[in-house]
Amino acid sequence: MNRGLNASLPSMTRQWVASQPAGHSLSQPFYREPEVYQADLDLVWRQGWLFAAHACEVSKAGDYVTLAVGADSIIVARDAAGALHAFHNVCRHRGSLICDQDCGHSRKLVCPYHSWTYGLDGSLQHAPAMPESLDKSQYSLRPVALREASGLVFICLSERPPDFEAAGETFDAVAKPQGLARARVAKRVDYLVKANWKLVWENNRECFHCNANHPQYIKANFDHYNADDTSPRVRELMDAAVRRSEAKWKASGFTVSHKQTGMTTFPDAERNIWYAANRTALVDGYVSETMDGAQVAPLMGDYPDPDVGTLRMRTLPNFWNHSSCDHSVSTRLLPAGPELTAIRVWWLVAAHAVEGRDYQLEKLMPFWQLTSEQDWEICERQQRGVNSSAYRPGPYSPFKEYNVDAFVRWYLNQLKASQP
Amino acid sequence: MNRGLNASLPSMTRQWVASQPAGHSLSQPFYREPEVYQADLDLVWRQGWLFAAHACEVSKAGDYVTLAVGADSIIVARDAAGALHAFHNVCRHRGSLICDQDCGHSRKLVCPYHSWTYGLDGSLQHAPAMPESLDKSQYSLRPVALREASGLVFICLSERPPDFEAAGETFDAVAKPQGLARARVAKRVDYLVKANWKLVWENNRECFHCNANHPQYIKANFDHYNADDTSPRVRELMDAAVRRSEAKWKASGFTVSHKQTGMTTFPDAERNIWYAANRTALVDGYVSETMDGAQVAPLMGDYPDPDVGTLRMRTLPNFWNHSSCDHSVSTRLLPAGPELTAIRVWWLVAAHAVEGRDYQLEKLMPFWQLTSEQDWEICERQQRGVNSSAYRPGPYSPFKEYNVDAFVRWYLNQLKASQP
Amino acid sequence: MNRGLNASLPSMTRQWVASQPAGHSLSQPFYREPEVYQADLDLVWRQGWLFAAHACEVSKAGDYVTLAVGADSIIVARDAAGALHAFHNVCRHRGSLICDQDCGHSRKLVCPYHSWTYGLDGSLQHAPAMPESLDKSQYSLRPVALREASGLVFICLSERPPDFEAAGETFDAVAKPQGLARARVAKRVDYLVKANWKLVWENNRECFHCNANHPQYIKANFDHYNADDTSPRVRELMDAAVRRSEAKWKASGFTVSHKQTGMTTFPDAERNIWYAANRTALVDGYVSETMDGAQVAPLMGDYPDPDVGTLRMRTLPNFWNHSSCDHSVSTRLLPAGPELTAIRVWWLVAAHAVEGRDYQLEKLMPFWQLTSEQDWEICERQQRGVNSSAYRPGPYSPFKEYNVDAFVRWYLNQLKASQP
Repeated sequence: MNRGLNASLPSMTRQWVASQPAGHSLSQPFYREPEVYQADLDLVWRQGWLFAAHACEVSKAGDYVTLAVGADSIIVARDAAGALHAFHNVCRHRGSLICDQDCGHSRKLVCPYHSWTYGLDGSLQHAPAMPESLDKSQYSLRPVALREASGLVFICLSERPPDFEAAGETFDAVAKPQGLARARVAKRVDYLVKANWKLVWENNRECFHCNANHPQYIKANFDHYNADDTSPRVRELMDAAVRRSEAKWKASGFTVSHKQTGMTTFPDAERNIWYAANRTALVDGYVSETMDGAQVAPLMGDYPDPDVGTLRMRTLPNFWNHSSCDHSVSTRLLPAGPELTAIRVWWLVAAHAVEGRDYQLEKLMPFWQLTSEQDWEICERQQRGVNSSAYRPGPYSPFKEYNVDAFVRWYLNQLKASQP
Repeated sequence: MNRGLNASLPSMTRQWVASQPAGHSLSQPFYREPEVYQADLDLVWRQGWLFAAHACEVSKAGDYVTLAVGADSIIVARDAAGALHAFHNVCRHRGSLICDQDCGHSRKLVCPYHSWTYGLDGSLQHAPAMPESLDKSQYSLRPVALREASGLVFICLSERPPDFEAAGETFDAVAKPQGLARARVAKRVDYLVKANWKLVWENNRECFHCNANHPQYIKANFDHYNADDTSPRVRELMDAAVRRSEAKWKASGFTVSHKQTGMTTFPDAERNIWYAANRTALVDGYVSETMDGAQVAPLMGDYPDPDVGTLRMRTLPNFWNHSSCDHSVSTRLLPAGPELTAIRVWWLVAAHAVEGRDYQLEKLMPFWQLTSEQDWEICERQQRGVNSSAYRPGPYSPFKEYNVDAFVRWYLNQLKASQP
Repeated sequence: MNRGLNASLPSMTRQWVASQPAGHSLSQPFYREPEVYQADLDLVWRQGWLFAAHACEVSKAGDYVTLAVGADSIIVARDAAGALHAFHNVCRHRGSLICDQDCGHSRKLVCPYHSWTYGLDGSLQHAPAMPESLDKSQYSLRPVALREASGLVFICLSERPPDFEAAGETFDAVAKPQGLARARVAKRVDYLVKANWKLVWENNRECFHCNANHPQYIKANFDHYNADDTSPRVRELMDAAVRRSEAKWKASGFTVSHKQTGMTTFPDAERNIWYAANRTALVDGYVSETMDGAQVAPLMGDYPDPDVGTLRMRTLPNFWNHSSCDHSVSTRLLPAGPELTAIRVWWLVAAHAVEGRDYQLEKLMPFWQLTSEQDWEICERQQRGVNSSAYRPGPYSPFKEYNVDAFVRWYLNQLKASQP
């Protein structure tokens, strides 16, 4: 209940942190105890930068979107001068939500209850029936920090947000040619997944499960190979793909930066690197993460031809993106309960692309819709298992789950950082 | 858990009461914390008089209705001598509910489990297979206090009910001519509103929100004007309506007792006045709170003609009524959870009125059905907002929210009254 | 949360145990408090033998079924050598459920997440991508004790299971001729009953409620008569039925062992007898517990003719069975929450019986489907009643509720057994 940020760790959670064995999956309380969920909200979700939306979703003055971080509803809006702002979606009068839709357009933000009226920068402009003495400057919508990088909008609920610059530079360096700032949303799908948000991340941080679960994904990618099973043949395929791209894109921003099999090493728990972006090769014959590898929409951004591999971005605790030459898929997690995660997946295409003429949803969507839903099913099944009194943390594979282990260490570090 | 009535305030709630700023909306815990909800049940709902039903719903010997106050189910029944009784709907044998329907008719109350049989006064008449030594007088259904006034039935769960006489006299003085005791129910609608019961009351205690939310209501009424915006023209319209009625009904019970714009001042927190009744004028051209102001059913009670303004009654914590010449609309709140309120709205007409012949539901219902549902939506939106960690109590308008402030003070006084 | 078995009683529960009045229904906390529910899981459900399934449901090597005891999912599987095994359905790698279906068939148990592979005895056979140094013998599925008796499969979650031998001998002595090991399931129906599991047992332990609630059941049986209402006529009917069977089955296993009206005395709280089996007479004209008493399926097991009365078995905390000459009905309870019980009812027939040819479900099922559903409705109504703040424990009938009282004493003894 309105616990201060930087709150110190509650006592049971501190014990669970202390007794967590290294190199193993988290113990049960981390996946289901309300006390841990509250600590996660306070010490992870209300401290770091969260992906909120794409800049192209609020492209015109007056456009806004809302999102819910736990019970906190946030508005992201663009003002008349073109600047983006974020604030809490809570009227300063009697606390009503101001915008109850997912997105909308309005010149001002008027509370539907008693018409307190705010500018698109959150400033209180009109408070009907209040005494003249009311100091409106004290009743702006409570502000939320906001940064944009390469068309991605991030917010931070903390009053002292951590640095964003390095993250922004990382995205700009690799993602600029994707042209996300000039994209448009072709489709959004919302999921309510019955699993703790950390199970969803752990699933995301390894492709160990891909062979058994993602028949579509493994045809296009090299991620599921690792040090233990990258055969000379696979090694040569990967090297060839990398060599081809290097020759072609010398000195361009499209150069492959992740040149080996396996997933990028991410996060870096010890240095608290919560963001990453890189480009990697697709399997020969694939120019896009689609069912048959073919291009399914017009080229995006600055790409001169389809052969640009695949761009990946990710930020903890709630975002990842896979972009191909012709489309981009973003995934956003939001915590909705100890065993519940609200997930939105977006498919973006070039702003000028017209549905039906330039692309069909039934060609654009299946690759990532299937892959995503396969993962949500895995996460829900794992949640049911870790809820058992018989569950005990199990060992991670050093060959294939190094990133899961890094995620767990990163997460525990966030909790520990709050200790006196 | 079976906490004693007059229990002292739990410790966190005591702190929240102490830190509540004056003249502001309540702080978050009052709207969602289970501890506060339990305190509300113990110290408000199980202490005061609750509207239960209309006497005309249990008009014949053997008629009964049930209602749920939190997890407590109560039976209101009429015995063969015509007296009304209320008792807990819990068999003294093994605790089964006795009546699981909303209403019914029976000469005796027989537990469906093992046929323990009670009279309509709650006395145990038959306990099968028990030893002769069983003292039946010790196993009556647990009694609940009951009072009737002007056809309205109130109950009190406390073993030491507060005074009811003044409330009864107030209703009799103003409401008698409405003839509610000789009415019948034309329609009942039940709502489960996802908001704390206090948010519903706060919404009820001001018409500040009416302009933006109740297009039907504001056409018929003067409530939404207040000291700050009663223009001379509005003032004159109101005065004219009052003068007209005074000339006409001199010395009758129909005289307008609330002669200004704005809502009746209610409650009186400092003197703990939890009941009120008054008659006020409708806008010229309205003889009933209907969509076009026209009469839609036969005159009720003792009214000689339609021009009787509008009668209003209200009792804390759970009842309000708006009555026109031709119909009467009652609203009853019952707490169903920290963020859940069960609301029933009744439309009553004269007992002799016949549906289809004398009135149509589609003319009778819309005014209050729309107005009610507009309010429930507001309350649910406010609940979502006050659940945010960013919510802070905001200032009440001295011109328009004086009754909300009075309600909040009244409520806090109920909690404080329990302190040692 | 992973509380050790044999945990000592939590403090509030200890107080509620101490203040429970003898000879009365349990006080409210036992029926709804989360703390008590957790104690029930730890001290009752994870200590004793639980009915899991019928051996005929896992008749072939590779057959398995799953069941959930609270949040603990268990697999019962038959290995290639024909032996039955039980283990926790939780992968030792990252805790995923391995089998998410109710039942299935597989040569090995492969976790769907990362393909850790277990034998049908629970032993880890393959752990992909783990270092050679991994000692697989340390990562078997966590074992659950298992016993079979007369075709009934029981499991025990405790590491030190109580004795099963006496129970097994009891069933074998009476139930063998029923031939359950050679039966097959004609139908399974699952219910989610909104009542604490103890309310379901209390309902099962008396036929005091039968006259008012089970019109079908009382036509076939003598259980609802007791010392207080067994008239000479009823006494003579019962005696005649017993005499007839004794003459006929002298020295056979079909002999009636329960020779009086009323239910078998069960459980024995003081000696902790949690199992029982007996055969009793049906009313003249009934050879099966069916709507009209007629045989509706081929004879089961070793029965030479239909006149074998009715076999009953029961084990605390979760099983009862009524078997007639031609079919057998098993009921299994599993706790699903403080006020929620998952109940499965099975109808079994001889293995060779063919639906449509040898029996019709519409003749086989109604007697116990109606009787069961009548009981679930009673239990849900009682739960709503005992949730009231007005509920107080009521007195048991010494004539008709001796077994309910015994159940309550047995239950309290389980809790007390854990105290220091």
